[in-house]
Amino acid sequence: MENETARVEAFSDGVFAIAITLLILEIVVRAPHEALSARRLSEELRHLWPSYLAYFASFATIGVMWLNHHRLFTLIVKNDDGLSAFNLLLLLGVTWVPFPTAVLATQLLAPGQRVAAVVYATSFFAIAIVFNLMWRYAVRSRLVREHLDVAAIARQYAGGPILYAILIGVGALNAVACLVLSAAIAAYFLLPPQLWRREAQQPRPMR
Amino acid sequence: MENETARVEAFSDGVFAIAITLLILEIVVRAPHEALSARRLSEELRHLWPSYLAYFASFATIGVMWLNHHRLFTLIVKNDDGLSAFNLLLLLGVTWVPFPTAVLATQLLAPGQRVAAVVYATSFFAIAIVFNLMWRYAVRSRLVREHLDVAAIARQYAGGPILYAILIGVGALNAVACLVLSAAIAAYFLLPPQLWRREAQQPRPMR
Amino acid sequence: MENETARVEAFSDGVFAIAITLLILEIVVRAPHEALSARRLSEELRHLWPSYLAYFASFATIGVMWLNHHRLFTLIVKNDDGLSAFNLLLLLGVTWVPFPTAVLATQLLAPGQRVAAVVYATSFFAIAIVFNLMWRYAVRSRLVREHLDVAAIARQYAGGPILYAILIGVGALNAVACLVLSAAIAAYFLLPPQLWRREAQQPRPMR
Amino acid sequence: MENETARVEAFSDGVFAIAITLLILEIVVRAPHEALSARRLSEELRHLWPSYLAYFASFATIGVMWLNHHRLFTLIVKNDDGLSAFNLLLLLGVTWVPFPTAVLATQLLAPGQRVAAVVYATSFFAIAIVFNLMWRYAVRSRLVREHLDVAAIARQYAGGPILYAILIGVGALNAVACLVLSAAIAAYFLLPPQLWRREAQQPRPMR
Repeated sequence: MENETARVEAFSDGVFAIAITLLILEIVVRAPHEALSARRLSEELRHLWPSYLAYFASFATIGVMWLNHHRLFTLIVKNDDGLSAFNLLLLLGVTWVPFPTAVLATQLLAPGQRVAAVVYATSFFAIAIVFNLMWRYAVRSRLVREHLDVAAIARQYAGGPILYAILIGVGALNAVACLVLSAAIAAYFLLPPQLWRREAQQPRPMR
Repeated sequence: MENETARVEAFSDGVFAIAITLLILEIVVRAPHEALSARRLSEELRHLWPSYLAYFASFATIGVMWLNHHRLFTLIVKNDDGLSAFNLLLLLGVTWVPFPTAVLATQLLAPGQRVAAVVYATSFFAIAIVFNLMWRYAVRSRLVREHLDVAAIARQYAGGPILYAILIGVGALNAVACLVLSAAIAAYFLLPPQLWRREAQQPRPMR
Repeated sequence: MENETARVEAFSDGVFAIAITLLILEIVVRAPHEALSARRLSEELRHLWPSYLAYFASFATIGVMWLNHHRLFTLIVKNDDGLSAFNLLLLLGVTWVPFPTAVLATQLLAPGQRVAAVVYATSFFAIAIVFNLMWRYAVRSRLVREHLDVAAIARQYAGGPILYAILIGVGALNAVACLVLSAAIAAYFLLPPQLWRREAQQPRPMR
Repeated sequence: MENETARVEAFSDGVFAIAITLLILEIVVRAPHEALSARRLSEELRHLWPSYLAYFASFATIGVMWLNHHRLFTLIVKNDDGLSAFNLLLLLGVTWVPFPTAVLATQLLAPGQRVAAVVYATSFFAIAIVFNLMWRYAVRSRLVREHLDVAAIARQYAGGPILYAILIGVGALNAVACLVLSAAIAAYFLLPPQLWRREAQQPRPMR
């Protein structure tokens, strides 16, 4: 192995990749084995828009979580059993996502939509908390690269739980707004924090 | 990590591998838990030919997309957040493929077949567009290897959207022809563009 | 390949990652396509607690098995066909886990719960036995690193079958206690054996 | 990338790992959401023995195919587009396996069992043919390591199609015998050919 965290990253990549790909299995045409007319099939496909929206929002969120995980492990260079435990807790959250996604997709237009939205948003909130705890643990256990502005990075990560707490509130009011906002939060996180960008612009030693 | 794009490639490989393998889950014998006679089982298996054809066409297409992704990342040697975002958009398209494949397989002999075929072909068209945008972005952001004939490669990539636009037109006329043509397009892309071949024949520095 | 066991580890990582992620597919709301009221959806979600508990226990167990596999392959540095065969047998056990998990989750409150719990615990027992056999084989075939206290490590591994034999006994009495204990065993294994920790603290040669 | 075939191997590992893990999804208790008595659950679990047998035979076969693929790519050191095409064809066969496995498992005691067994065995026969074609292609295109006794290795590979042709014949007579024989063939291939063993025993240069 080229470094201590390589196999943890490989396993995590696998879990993220599978969780993000399983989302599509939730999108199914009603009565899939019936022969449908063009008009009826078009209606069925349009009728699935809550599934498409939930698929997009969850794909974007898991995608950005993967990206964050990837960024985090460019800063974390050592591994220990505590970090492995936090990482498993994080992956528990990631593999969980397809379930609330499926519930929200099927209930988006039902009276129980807000319950589904709160469960959905709370799942992301919990994952954001674990990201924070994992980063703090890595810093405290000296598993991170040297010369990092760890306090500034911790402030960056603190944004996640705050945004997802707001998402829970929005979900309690309206499920569609909750999905749209979760996709918007993913887009926000896709924009890189200035700290990592500055880090990345430093010349790297030849290897 | 041996290079900047290694983990992006590993994650993408996982997503491609899962999407291509999930396709088989769509092929199911009707009434699978019934005990069937030899004649009835043979009929049931023959009756599934639209599923086999859709499975083959989508497998070939995702396979070739993976190959293109692989080729692209032999030319792209640096990573940034924009490229990660484009790559996620590309993977969104790839994970989407099993859904229109399942719809087209089950509706191939139904009156709504042409609607299903247009949705199927449009999915591939969108992915081909994202491939083009990603390549242009990588060139403009100077993430690619030096001394490449980027204009010639861009011309090669422009072929994808054109072919898949034609596929949409064919799908609007006949769904079976659409599936056969999409398999043929995959075979065409499997033939390597001369540019990359020439590139690959240059002697490589020892590492 | 950077070392002889790299591709065995990569394949195993993939299998572990997929098995751990497939667990979520077993959690499904009854009548998922019905529009539910807020009260009814809340009830349905609460009603699924056996599935959540089984999901958590199996996730933790597979997670810890992966960790053990990872630790084992930091000690195993050579590969041969016998080791590959043992590794496949181990992976057979890992991919099997989602099935007894699903059975136990759905039968946790049914009269047959203890049968389901015994099957569940026996699956983990069998995997622990294979871990032991694989380690003994690796030592006897001189596939492990030099200067290891192999007897002490074998004693550590012997704990697995003993704990899972107890789990079978608990499962024969009460299925919920069986699930809680299996999660507790996973937490116990997450705590690293002192031997590996001492090993890991030795300075490593530069590469 | 450390060598030319690394990403082809990584993608193939992913496909093998997923196909081998998806097999478990086919094993489902009838009426899974019914609360069953201990006696009834025991009966249901015993009743699934054709599924267990098919799961074991297909797991062993895919596992051995992965091992063969792994061995093959220790001999193949260069990649080209033809090899990628053959590899995709091979993976098409591997991802196909869960379908005939599911059909055979559910029809093993039905009158149509022999039809299911012939389809099952023919799938493995086709994969064995592709393995042979891929090896011949790799040799002819000079993608393999130097100083190999390629004729002897080709003779080894020729055993696969012959054994699986016999399996088709056995399947035409009895489906259970077909499953047992396919597991036995997998065990046979797990025993390493002497050629590769001698190869592996040569001292390797330090890296």
